[in-house]
Amino acid sequence: MTSKPISRYPVPQLRDLPQDIRDRILAAQEKAGFVPNVFLAMAHRPEEFRAFCAYYDALMEKEAGLTKAEREMIVVATSSANQCQYCVVAHGAILRIRAKNPLIADQVTANYRKADITPRERAMLDFAMKVSRQSEEVADADFQLLRAHGFSDEDIWDIGAISAFFALSNRMANLISMRPNDEFYMMGRDAAAKKD
Amino acid sequence: MTSKPISRYPVPQLRDLPQDIRDRILAAQEKAGFVPNVFLAMAHRPEEFRAFCAYYDALMEKEAGLTKAEREMIVVATSSANQCQYCVVAHGAILRIRAKNPLIADQVTANYRKADITPRERAMLDFAMKVSRQSEEVADADFQLLRAHGFSDEDIWDIGAISAFFALSNRMANLISMRPNDEFYMMGRDAAAKKD
Amino acid sequence: MTSKPISRYPVPQLRDLPQDIRDRILAAQEKAGFVPNVFLAMAHRPEEFRAFCAYYDALMEKEAGLTKAEREMIVVATSSANQCQYCVVAHGAILRIRAKNPLIADQVTANYRKADITPRERAMLDFAMKVSRQSEEVADADFQLLRAHGFSDEDIWDIGAISAFFALSNRMANLISMRPNDEFYMMGRDAAAKKD
Amino acid sequence: MTSKPISRYPVPQLRDLPQDIRDRILAAQEKAGFVPNVFLAMAHRPEEFRAFCAYYDALMEKEAGLTKAEREMIVVATSSANQCQYCVVAHGAILRIRAKNPLIADQVTANYRKADITPRERAMLDFAMKVSRQSEEVADADFQLLRAHGFSDEDIWDIGAISAFFALSNRMANLISMRPNDEFYMMGRDAAAKKD
Amino acid sequence: MTSKPISRYPVPQLRDLPQDIRDRILAAQEKAGFVPNVFLAMAHRPEEFRAFCAYYDALMEKEAGLTKAEREMIVVATSSANQCQYCVVAHGAILRIRAKNPLIADQVTANYRKADITPRERAMLDFAMKVSRQSEEVADADFQLLRAHGFSDEDIWDIGAISAFFALSNRMANLISMRPNDEFYMMGRDAAAKKD
Amino acid sequence: MTSKPISRYPVPQLRDLPQDIRDRILAAQEKAGFVPNVFLAMAHRPEEFRAFCAYYDALMEKEAGLTKAEREMIVVATSSANQCQYCVVAHGAILRIRAKNPLIADQVTANYRKADITPRERAMLDFAMKVSRQSEEVADADFQLLRAHGFSDEDIWDIGAISAFFALSNRMANLISMRPNDEFYMMGRDAAAKKD
Repeated sequence: MTSKPISRYPVPQLRDLPQDIRDRILAAQEKAGFVPNVFLAMAHRPEEFRAFCAYYDALMEKEAGLTKAEREMIVVATSSANQCQYCVVAHGAILRIRAKNPLIADQVTANYRKADITPRERAMLDFAMKVSRQSEEVADADFQLLRAHGFSDEDIWDIGAISAFFALSNRMANLISMRPNDEFYMMGRDAAAKKD
Repeated sequence: MTSKPISRYPVPQLRDLPQDIRDRILAAQEKAGFVPNVFLAMAHRPEEFRAFCAYYDALMEKEAGLTKAEREMIVVATSSANQCQYCVVAHGAILRIRAKNPLIADQVTANYRKADITPRERAMLDFAMKVSRQSEEVADADFQLLRAHGFSDEDIWDIGAISAFFALSNRMANLISMRPNDEFYMMGRDAAAKKD
Repeated sequence: MTSKPISRYPVPQLRDLPQDIRDRILAAQEKAGFVPNVFLAMAHRPEEFRAFCAYYDALMEKEAGLTKAEREMIVVATSSANQCQYCVVAHGAILRIRAKNPLIADQVTANYRKADITPRERAMLDFAMKVSRQSEEVADADFQLLRAHGFSDEDIWDIGAISAFFALSNRMANLISMRPNDEFYMMGRDAAAKKD
Repeated sequence: MTSKPISRYPVPQLRDLPQDIRDRILAAQEKAGFVPNVFLAMAHRPEEFRAFCAYYDALMEKEAGLTKAEREMIVVATSSANQCQYCVVAHGAILRIRAKNPLIADQVTANYRKADITPRERAMLDFAMKVSRQSEEVADADFQLLRAHGFSDEDIWDIGAISAFFALSNRMANLISMRPNDEFYMMGRDAAAKKD
Repeated sequence: MTSKPISRYPVPQLRDLPQDIRDRILAAQEKAGFVPNVFLAMAHRPEEFRAFCAYYDALMEKEAGLTKAEREMIVVATSSANQCQYCVVAHGAILRIRAKNPLIADQVTANYRKADITPRERAMLDFAMKVSRQSEEVADADFQLLRAHGFSDEDIWDIGAISAFFALSNRMANLISMRPNDEFYMMGRDAAAKKD
Repeated sequence: MTSKPISRYPVPQLRDLPQDIRDRILAAQEKAGFVPNVFLAMAHRPEEFRAFCAYYDALMEKEAGLTKAEREMIVVATSSANQCQYCVVAHGAILRIRAKNPLIADQVTANYRKADITPRERAMLDFAMKVSRQSEEVADADFQLLRAHGFSDEDIWDIGAISAFFALSNRMANLISMRPNDEFYMMGRDAAAKKD
């Protein structure tokens, strides 16, 4: 569909990668139907790739606490503030799918304060944005506010840690000029997929 | 599709509006297949509605100079910086259609510097952003740079004036919490519509 | 008094302009005693001129709700934040006259928080500034605060819309480097004109 | 003319002040025709008053190098950025008188980049603003640029030191809510005083 | 020395931790002479701990390319901009030791532009700061500038990736209010340790 | 220890300075055990030197109200925000000594919100930072908050005036690229000096 480079750096061939990385990538491909460019671009550095994926899985694939859709909302809101094209587009797609809502990603990208979210989610995103943009001002009062919305302290760690992890991820994507796969743009936009 | 309010203010019924405004709205409906919410929300104030539409038409429907796709690019880039949900979503749709490019709007929204645009378009958007965010620093050097990219002085007025008009438009939409029609989200995403 | 250019763009001769624009300009001249440069500079684009004037009149010449002095206060405060020389100087003059207060414009220009205004006007200007600088954060709480000061929802639209319109106007003036007429600087400074 | 307080703090009576401070104030009164409020407000702390005046005199009453009008330009431009009502109004008056130009102060206040100043003065104000707002980035390249405009290194110290001194002065005025005398607003606005 | 909490979250006992984590912590203790608080605070989440350490090691313990002192400089400069007390204090200590320079950490913390560093290091830190604070604007021109200073593209990845990793790390430390060990403050300040 | 220049400007020899300035410098030398570079660098301009020292003494050597350690805390917090290497390093040393706390200066430098300070000191520093960075927004509510922490209005003047004076001082140091003496880095770090 496009032959634009997906990274400023050399992109390895799947066959040249260590087995564990190749396995990880093939698993991702099976899930998505294509290999998300982040895997190929980051595989330029196998050690960092492994740590990146392990960190990502620990935060994004966790079953308890925040829903997976909520986790993606945090990614999209903070990545939009950081102007990270890759994460906004790719995680926008995942958010649409996980929330079963074809509109939510574009809403959160444009201005999360006006998105169709609950007051609890709004508080979650306000905090995620504070961690993303002014973490030096995080204070006990922020924790109290989130607890009043029913978040446990472990949930709050999750919110903050996802925001922090994508502070890393967004900067890496901007550093290497990572390009989102064309496939992401349309994923989850099918009205039939919507929550009734 | 949704019953969320489209404005903080009362939204008039079409039948209660003055004839010229009703005509304008029906024309828009015929073109889009639905009534874009901006028309109903702004029609709360008929005088302002008329001026708004006249200004819009003068800048966005002009045939010479910038292409219509370029005009929409300016809208999307500056509206994203202003976090205007309505304009990002609605004009994102129009940009996709006018550029015959299903990816361009999301790219420009996330980070116009990484979008699939020409160096000339990049210079255009840099200037539009400067007018949008630091117009007090606009200087002759900006004009020289744009002229070097082949823009005439009338083109430069267009770039700046579109940025300025959407500085107004974005603030109005944020003021009244204007909601984009659900239809916009999918418009122009059809791969078949793409440029080869 | 000065022969400095009043715009980066060609300035039309009155005799070359369409009749309706010439009439509008002559009316302004009769009122002010001179032709404010904004009319000549904007007349370079007749369509935009007409829309600009119509929008301006709808917001600034309205009789009900906010007083005319309050409307000018909004213009001066937001134009100062946008560093628009033309609007600060020209509307500073109009503010002095409409408020019958020779000090108020310079006070609002320098720091509206320290101007001789009422708490109600302070709340009005705080909101106008929010629309001007961070409209993405406008929220219901802002409306509640203004209502507590006695503003109706239509007044709030006026405050926000004036701020939004001058977001456009300030950017146009900065874009074309519009120069205020020398006459504005002294208008309304006569102590005798003051409110007793 | 007004009975508004001139400071958040107690304002001493002239007769209660130490002789040297009273003499300084009477000299200022003789020069201006009234006692500028800064003297009375700062005299609340005699030690600080003396240091403040000594510093002021060393920078603003110096005969060589920058003209007195240029020194005042620096004060007005940086005080406007710091939103210091007292300094913008009082030094705006002095600037008009020293530059024999009734327009210059309002121009510099609104946007010094659009004021009727020479390229040399523009470079001077750009540097003064850098010292005022981002002094941490001052670098050798700034000195080279100013030297190319004919400024000596001692002139550059003056520019920076005036900007630095008013960083103090503006903060003190904002801290104690110092009010400019009504007399300042009209001083130097007489067209007859203008440079021909 | 202090009994202040080292984290907002529960801090595990060494004996309760999985073997691999305990080993990692004991190794750190052996190296430093004490257990750096980051290990205990982050061990609250074993999965994230492992990924965090693996990422850290990949970037900070690498032998080729940037020196270890240069890597620490990047950490200190960006952590200071992010106001991360833990990283400024702990990595300040490591920087002093690795650079054999007791002054360098405080210099870089206060204003890296005025630190005793080479022009090459200055370019490195300018870029690290750009990745840290405006990664959305990273462009080819930045790469060209760094190459002109002799950095390879792999070095540039290192600079950017360290900046990105500490964008994460600083936010985690601010989120959980991580407290640096008192021991760090004095480490490497011994004049005898200095480079001659 | 180092032969790096201590100022961008010529540094006078002690023997060439006027007697009163020489006396002042020798007194400082006796107290510190070395001549702090600020004295030599500022002595390039004797008039300004005298005013600077007089202002400094009036604010920093005062016996009543704020403790001397509190005064130094204000200096370190605001100087860090202004990225003034000289003041962060030199006054960091004085803060350690006056507070008898070897950790406090580095804590306040990195992020005063996380330093080991009392809520009263936190309120003091919040206000000092507001005066330093947004003095235009200082309001009665700030005074009320500080009074609730037990500060008198004269204490509040002191807080604000110290912040304002170092707004000047930081800019001068950045302007002339003032270098802190190497001796400062280690002063007051002796654990034995600590408060028990």
